[in-house]
Amino acid sequence: MSIRFEVVRNDGAARLGRLQTPHGTVDTPVFMPVGTQATVKGLTPPQLQDAGARIILANTYHLALRPGEEVIAGLGGLHQFMAWDGPILTDSGGYQVYSLALSRKIDDRAAVFRSHIDGRLLELSPERAVAIQEGLGSDIAMCLDECPPANTTAAELREAVCRTVHWAERCRAAHRRPDQALFAIVQGGTDLELRGRCAEALAGLDFAGYALGGFSVGETAAQMLAVLGPSAALLPVHRPRYLMGVGRPEDIVAAVACGVDMFDCVLPTRNGRNAMAFTAAGPLRLRNAQHKRDPAPLESGCSCYACRHFSRAYLHHLFLADEMLGPVLLSLHNVAFYCRLMDEVRGAIGQGRFTEFRSVSLARWGVRL
Amino acid sequence: MSIRFEVVRNDGAARLGRLQTPHGTVDTPVFMPVGTQATVKGLTPPQLQDAGARIILANTYHLALRPGEEVIAGLGGLHQFMAWDGPILTDSGGYQVYSLALSRKIDDRAAVFRSHIDGRLLELSPERAVAIQEGLGSDIAMCLDECPPANTTAAELREAVCRTVHWAERCRAAHRRPDQALFAIVQGGTDLELRGRCAEALAGLDFAGYALGGFSVGETAAQMLAVLGPSAALLPVHRPRYLMGVGRPEDIVAAVACGVDMFDCVLPTRNGRNAMAFTAAGPLRLRNAQHKRDPAPLESGCSCYACRHFSRAYLHHLFLADEMLGPVLLSLHNVAFYCRLMDEVRGAIGQGRFTEFRSVSLARWGVRL
Repeated sequence: MSIRFEVVRNDGAARLGRLQTPHGTVDTPVFMPVGTQATVKGLTPPQLQDAGARIILANTYHLALRPGEEVIAGLGGLHQFMAWDGPILTDSGGYQVYSLALSRKIDDRAAVFRSHIDGRLLELSPERAVAIQEGLGSDIAMCLDECPPANTTAAELREAVCRTVHWAERCRAAHRRPDQALFAIVQGGTDLELRGRCAEALAGLDFAGYALGGFSVGETAAQMLAVLGPSAALLPVHRPRYLMGVGRPEDIVAAVACGVDMFDCVLPTRNGRNAMAFTAAGPLRLRNAQHKRDPAPLESGCSCYACRHFSRAYLHHLFLADEMLGPVLLSLHNVAFYCRLMDEVRGAIGQGRFTEFRSVSLARWGVRL
Repeated sequence: MSIRFEVVRNDGAARLGRLQTPHGTVDTPVFMPVGTQATVKGLTPPQLQDAGARIILANTYHLALRPGEEVIAGLGGLHQFMAWDGPILTDSGGYQVYSLALSRKIDDRAAVFRSHIDGRLLELSPERAVAIQEGLGSDIAMCLDECPPANTTAAELREAVCRTVHWAERCRAAHRRPDQALFAIVQGGTDLELRGRCAEALAGLDFAGYALGGFSVGETAAQMLAVLGPSAALLPVHRPRYLMGVGRPEDIVAAVACGVDMFDCVLPTRNGRNAMAFTAAGPLRLRNAQHKRDPAPLESGCSCYACRHFSRAYLHHLFLADEMLGPVLLSLHNVAFYCRLMDEVRGAIGQGRFTEFRSVSLARWGVRL
């Protein structure tokens, strides 16, 4: 089998796990930095490694459009192309068809849309989504799903769930690569009955892992958290559970408490580029004039390269001077912050004190859920 | 004394030397990457080190304007501020007053101008230029000079030379830091008699090193090369000689043949940001479609991080996708190219075969001087 997953310890619904892939083993719960276009923006693979990243995500939609998966396959696959030899998960492209593509039309056969880059007419079917990801050669591929927005009607939501299950069957039938795992995606919005039916149907097909999709699509954090626990509980116990595109540190900690094992989100790198640093004491905005003469590192006690060597004053200067190194160093710190958070999460589960860890963290961040 | 310089070997007019500074020893001829705003654009100090950089340049004008030298001094000086613990040379700001500042007015007392950032009225006198650089704490400071454009009149050029000598005296009188060397700058455009008078007057003041200024200000490369040899020969033999702001690989090799020891130029990083890579076989333009599927590194045999890990196809993709990592990796390679060129230059002088090295290099680059 392409991957193996083992739950090492439970603490309430939270799980400490171990995920073996063809490119190495990662401890879960784990955060995956996002390398949309075959690069985690601004960071070299060694910088990512130093920040603590062990598995990253890349986007099927973006890479199929540019440079094209056949180009990447011809160069030895995504790992070699981007010089990342750890595990890679690729999404299916379904979410980007919904969020980025132009004049989208979805029916049972496929999603037809225009490229947001050059307007080319393209088609993404379940079979094509699998073929692209097999060409990329990721360790974990995702089934094509339909991901409707939060304000969708009940009928549309039902239809999206039916199609998602149907497409998952077709992805499973089309999937060939023995060194790649295929995960299914559970849709159903905030309708628990629909999520239950979707999860049951997909579990019957015995995928290597299961994702919760259709969150972070416009609903409030409270709406998401209200259904997250019951939704996660619907998933097979012995398979990794992946909450797609979520999120803020407090959302991740809440989702871990619901039994989720894997996460991805653009926040650490996107906020880093926009001069926002995550710290244990809450966010720092580096453009703020208060940092002009501050000799302190971004976060005391952080062992990332940026915190070991640079002051807030220097980072403030880099952002004011519009220097590339500012986004690089803050992205690096933020990825390190997320990876360290997951270290602490795993430590707390391992010691059976995750509930306490969670309340202390939320209090420290000044967050009320 | 703050620095020591020793000529280890001569090969024609070319010199192999050793420059000791408070932050380490560098072999000359040496290339200094430009860290205008206290950062060599896009590169971390370890990346610079890996690329072979041993001494860098920072700009007095830019740093005095933003964040202000008193901010940097308050944070422990420029080395600590930017986490570069090798030698740093700061220019005097004179060149930027001529090239960047608005509504500039220069008289014997000082240059008065408006900041190109916010229009503030500022003044740069010889004493102020020294005070700024003492605040920054560079290993090598430059005297304030007047740097007229190439198309200046003979009378204006004479006046600029007089003022440059007068200002050098005042800089020398104002300079206090025992752990910082002060270099004088020889002006005189392409007028050898003027350059001779300027060099003689400055040599009489016994500076720690001498720069050739007023090149790369609009004259052709041929015009520069015609006077470079005689100009360099006017400088004291036992002091390091620095050709400011030059240049292309072929210009550097030509200037080494004239007896120049130190160089700085923005080309490796600026061209890197613009998708141009220097290679031993001449320049590569990475946006060019011919690189789309090319598995070769930028330059075979180059041991830089970019060449060890990435294909031209990947770098082409990064530039087309507007990803920050493209400029980072190409800047890194280009700095490594310049540093390796200087390695080879030193090797050739050490073996007494610099003339041959120079002709072979020019032929390989397809350059006729």
